[in-house]
Amino acid sequence: MSYVKWSYDTLHHFLVDAFVNFGFKAEEAETVAENLLMSDMYGIESHGMQRVVRYHKGIEKGMIDVHATPEVVFETPVSAVIEGNAGMGQLVGKKAMQLAIDKAKKSGVGIVSARNSNHFGIAGYYAKMACNEGLIGFACTNSEAIMVPTYGRLAMLGSNPIACAMPADPYDFFFDASTTVVTRGKLEMYNKEKKPLPEGWALDKDGHDSTDAPDVLANIIAKNGGGIMPLGGSKELTGSHKGYGYGMLCEIFSSILSMGDTSNYCMQGDKGLICHGFAAIDPAAFGDPAAIKAHLSTYLQELRDSPKAEGQERIYTHGEKEIAAIADREKNGIPVNENTMVEVYDVLDYLGMDPKAYFGDYVPPKDDAVFAGNY
Amino acid sequence: MSYVKWSYDTLHHFLVDAFVNFGFKAEEAETVAENLLMSDMYGIESHGMQRVVRYHKGIEKGMIDVHATPEVVFETPVSAVIEGNAGMGQLVGKKAMQLAIDKAKKSGVGIVSARNSNHFGIAGYYAKMACNEGLIGFACTNSEAIMVPTYGRLAMLGSNPIACAMPADPYDFFFDASTTVVTRGKLEMYNKEKKPLPEGWALDKDGHDSTDAPDVLANIIAKNGGGIMPLGGSKELTGSHKGYGYGMLCEIFSSILSMGDTSNYCMQGDKGLICHGFAAIDPAAFGDPAAIKAHLSTYLQELRDSPKAEGQERIYTHGEKEIAAIADREKNGIPVNENTMVEVYDVLDYLGMDPKAYFGDYVPPKDDAVFAGNY
Repeated sequence: MSYVKWSYDTLHHFLVDAFVNFGFKAEEAETVAENLLMSDMYGIESHGMQRVVRYHKGIEKGMIDVHATPEVVFETPVSAVIEGNAGMGQLVGKKAMQLAIDKAKKSGVGIVSARNSNHFGIAGYYAKMACNEGLIGFACTNSEAIMVPTYGRLAMLGSNPIACAMPADPYDFFFDASTTVVTRGKLEMYNKEKKPLPEGWALDKDGHDSTDAPDVLANIIAKNGGGIMPLGGSKELTGSHKGYGYGMLCEIFSSILSMGDTSNYCMQGDKGLICHGFAAIDPAAFGDPAAIKAHLSTYLQELRDSPKAEGQERIYTHGEKEIAAIADREKNGIPVNENTMVEVYDVLDYLGMDPKAYFGDYVPPKDDAVFAGNY
Repeated sequence: MSYVKWSYDTLHHFLVDAFVNFGFKAEEAETVAENLLMSDMYGIESHGMQRVVRYHKGIEKGMIDVHATPEVVFETPVSAVIEGNAGMGQLVGKKAMQLAIDKAKKSGVGIVSARNSNHFGIAGYYAKMACNEGLIGFACTNSEAIMVPTYGRLAMLGSNPIACAMPADPYDFFFDASTTVVTRGKLEMYNKEKKPLPEGWALDKDGHDSTDAPDVLANIIAKNGGGIMPLGGSKELTGSHKGYGYGMLCEIFSSILSMGDTSNYCMQGDKGLICHGFAAIDPAAFGDPAAIKAHLSTYLQELRDSPKAEGQERIYTHGEKEIAAIADREKNGIPVNENTMVEVYDVLDYLGMDPKAYFGDYVPPKDDAVFAGNY
């Protein structure tokens, strides 16, 4: 599977215009574009341009209401619940995280849980919003069930990512990971690339290990059973119950506290929306923020400097690979899978937009790749 | 390796008397006993009676100050930092969690970070304190480095457990797990039982996979390299960087916010103490606590009721195995490894206590088992 590279500006131009044409206001389209491109710039291909087709389908099906306004329905000086009103996840998420940040600046801590939202892109985007203001940021989201609980055979939790960002020098601590071994986006990438899945990633419809990406994805969509394993695999001996537990923590801050749909009810046909959780914590609530930042920075440097395993050249701290990815993409452009470009051209066609205005004479391959999700 | 069973009262009697004889006040000894026995009652053998020898060595070496009083050194309505003054971990921990609970009851959220403490038993004990008062409880702790970061060969993080408890019916959600694949206590149990380690748990001094428990433990003690893998194993493909990331979250709430020793400095000879993090969150800060509890309870029941993998009979929710373990131990007594009883008899001898007053005519085996820790 080949890739084509585009500049940030080219993709940004396309995304803003496309989301305006879907019916969003210009500043809303800007937020969505910024969120998706942050993912691609960070090297998290699964949550960038690849997600456009999902939003297209979500808007088409009416799961995403382009005119929705998220509302604060419960609030204290340190907490809030937001009703997303079926809005675009990025717009619900940004509002919720901003509220958490505002509360943290006043009260030291802000925790916001949001319901009836949609896919919000990478969780790290919101954690980083807080970090950019000198705070510790957390974000998590549930989603359509894809994680099979330990000893189960039906997906009951989402990929349920948890992200955390905290200021540090020379670059911030930035952790953003699903509580499954991998995300569905990664399965979709393997599917597009027609590669077998690595061992330990997925389960077939009966709950046995599987490396068959198309079969696993088809079973997930048809709710036949199977799905992705929790971080830690399928056995307690390798910590399966721990990944499942982290998935539950995500569920608590997203669907449980907001009284929203738990992952097993998310995106069932045209029903069931998504919930998110956000938190911001001011290091100043624990002492001198500059000293705390320096303390973290020292530890991160010690980790990077610590002895490497034989055959390895480098220990990464979280956020470091993203810095390298950004530098690469600023220099060489953002790689987009050509099957994703097929989807992009479908969107252009759907919206009556001229591809030449964005991608010049580029022609996507005639490919049999089809969107494998149910939005 | 054989086990001997004792009643809760027998072990409680021994523990309270032993810790009073070590120099603690009666109510302090009671807290330590309650904490250790909660672990054994929950079936978490590694953190119960097996830990007595570590406290014995810690007190003997002067790492644990039996007369210490933990102090609040920084405080806001939602946060605090506690200076442990080298006190017993259980006493620092209980004070810190109580403070977090008090703040959550007044402000909705309480987050407390503690430094210069010692091993505090199971993190779940503190999370459960909050849960018992209707709150969501979190607790974590760093410890002597034992987790090797992804692509490293030197342990730089502790086993860094994170615990969460939240009220639910018919029993609370209770999650308590190291961010390593397993704890050091588990390695010590395999060592005592002279069994090879399962694949995927540990690394040798050069950073390669190892199943040799005595070698891995000896290397950890001598700081030769090697240690335990993060949850997710040693490769990014299986999510190693995720377990490493959760270990970092633990470090942030324990050592970083408190400005205490990061795990790579904990328990280096007679220097370097331990840090903990605690949080309590009032569900009432998000709506009706009874409705939120019912929502969680429903989801937990749906998880238990969901289809099982072929060959499996049951899906557990977190906290359910502990309920079963308690019922078993209330009926049949608490099983204690006989090598642990050797250590207990050493403590009795050290303190000049009469074993018959607690364990009657029981005689521990003449065993070559020795304490494998450096306290």
